[in-house]
Amino acid sequence: MNMSDNNILVVDCLQASKPSRERFLEWREGNVGCVHVTLAVWENCRETLSVVGIWNRMFADNADLVERATSAADIRRIHAAGRTAVILGFQNTSPLEDDIDLVQIFHDLGVRIIQLTYNIQNHIASGCWEDNDPGISQFYGRNLIKEMNAVGMLIDVSHTAENSSLQAAELSERPIAITHANPSGWVGFDIELNRRNKSDELIKLVAEKGGVIGLSMYPKIMRGGSNATLDDFCEMVEYSAEQFGIDAVGLGTDFNTGHPPEAITWWRAGRWARTSPVAGVLATWPDWFSQPSAFPNLIQALRDRGFSDDDVSKIAGGNWLRLFEESFSPRP
Amino acid sequence: MNMSDNNILVVDCLQASKPSRERFLEWREGNVGCVHVTLAVWENCRETLSVVGIWNRMFADNADLVERATSAADIRRIHAAGRTAVILGFQNTSPLEDDIDLVQIFHDLGVRIIQLTYNIQNHIASGCWEDNDPGISQFYGRNLIKEMNAVGMLIDVSHTAENSSLQAAELSERPIAITHANPSGWVGFDIELNRRNKSDELIKLVAEKGGVIGLSMYPKIMRGGSNATLDDFCEMVEYSAEQFGIDAVGLGTDFNTGHPPEAITWWRAGRWARTSPVAGVLATWPDWFSQPSAFPNLIQALRDRGFSDDDVSKIAGGNWLRLFEESFSPRP
Repeated sequence: MNMSDNNILVVDCLQASKPSRERFLEWREGNVGCVHVTLAVWENCRETLSVVGIWNRMFADNADLVERATSAADIRRIHAAGRTAVILGFQNTSPLEDDIDLVQIFHDLGVRIIQLTYNIQNHIASGCWEDNDPGISQFYGRNLIKEMNAVGMLIDVSHTAENSSLQAAELSERPIAITHANPSGWVGFDIELNRRNKSDELIKLVAEKGGVIGLSMYPKIMRGGSNATLDDFCEMVEYSAEQFGIDAVGLGTDFNTGHPPEAITWWRAGRWARTSPVAGVLATWPDWFSQPSAFPNLIQALRDRGFSDDDVSKIAGGNWLRLFEESFSPRP
Repeated sequence: MNMSDNNILVVDCLQASKPSRERFLEWREGNVGCVHVTLAVWENCRETLSVVGIWNRMFADNADLVERATSAADIRRIHAAGRTAVILGFQNTSPLEDDIDLVQIFHDLGVRIIQLTYNIQNHIASGCWEDNDPGISQFYGRNLIKEMNAVGMLIDVSHTAENSSLQAAELSERPIAITHANPSGWVGFDIELNRRNKSDELIKLVAEKGGVIGLSMYPKIMRGGSNATLDDFCEMVEYSAEQFGIDAVGLGTDFNTGHPPEAITWWRAGRWARTSPVAGVLATWPDWFSQPSAFPNLIQALRDRGFSDDDVSKIAGGNWLRLFEESFSPRP
């Protein structure tokens, strides 16, 4: 590990592991400054409140390792104290149900990032699995984007369909995020579940508006799949920096572990189907990123690729910090 | 009143009044055999259970006037006993939330008709207010139609958008209903809120598949608006019988009264907006149908128009009874 690694603030802008002290210890081992975690995928309001409760207890019981962050300043302070800052987020608008006022309620409870939809169509937008993608719904969808802008809730479109994501970027008056996905322009369109990745056109628009994409080595959305190397990942980072600008590139591993097998069916089918419409188990993480303690190797690989200290710092977490700084407060 | 009116079983396939003994007395005054009532517009599962509870108490407290019906046989028996049969229905899938299993749960609780969406896009379909209408959603939407077919829950598309309604009719393996809307082919497209009405193409498809449309004199969806006469209404019935076949034509007044002013905002904006996106108050009902006690006049007007006794009987309620008979039991 390079000495300067201690100063680098790594932000992983999505992990979906089951929360546990074991995970928090891995974060500390990898000197991860901040992790955006997932509280809800299909959970409704009431269920999500209980998950907020679970995290509140996690923070109380593991205050030596982690602390909830609701601002970039929080993240810097927590990282400087040798702990990991945790940003609470949803991968769906299901916790908001049909109630525009719940954006403020969940902001008050510490939530800072909400994805518009998870894989399928909902009241707001279309998901990446759907063949039809009419965009952001004219009434609730547009209202919700305005409300998230007003309250200071960062819009995430990682699992949202292409046209819906483009419209979200256009309609939003604040930058939006792609917390965990890869550019199809580099990955290609022929891998399993490729719909999860984003067109260069979309990423460029998100970048122009001040947003960030979190790149992931998750094999199902990565060129080469399980055979992808750390070098391949660095090549994707390089491609992204060239195409979208260095200020738009971040990390969002989508790392997850510790869930029972039924959690996978829950993510894929929720309660709206009795069996998953998508076959197959989760992919195994590559040996060079088998857990978040591997972040220092990844950072070193970016240096070895020739990125400057400044650029490495932006990619590792600086860009996310800038976006968080601009996004988490109510609009003046 | 013609003597034979006593034998005619009138089915009004949608009323949305606030339930009260006063309304039930009006039904009895009009010798209304059956009314399909609305328990939910934006209500979620828990809220709807309470509304089921309200109706259960209504039935217990007004057993001399009304009784819940869950089959065509129930309706005939209740009507023969000089009372009004009540079919429970939802104008939205909001009570089902994201849970496909709730179709059976609500069927067990007596609900028999569910509209796919109310005005705007949801998980299932697009609503008549939306400019974009991608049709029935590929995952939850298609699953839900299969489930409603299996359980014996009649699909209603009255407030659903055109393409979504066409797809629902095509995807459903059982007939579907348009419980309360008018043919745009007769009404025209230039009246306020005309999107609520249905194209002749859609109504023809619904009719071919064994479904029924319930015609309404509600001024906002009626040619001539508040100036429309009973003769105009009979002309619309005649047009519909000619275009769609006598077996597809029924009544669905959309009659509603007794709600406080805030109920109108609730119907229009739910919790997804803070103000109604549609201006204006509810229209006043025409003097020839100021309340459901006017049904005998309407029936007499159809006779005067030259419809045979058989045809009047079908339009008044026979077609709905046939559809209910085919629709409310689980699929064999």
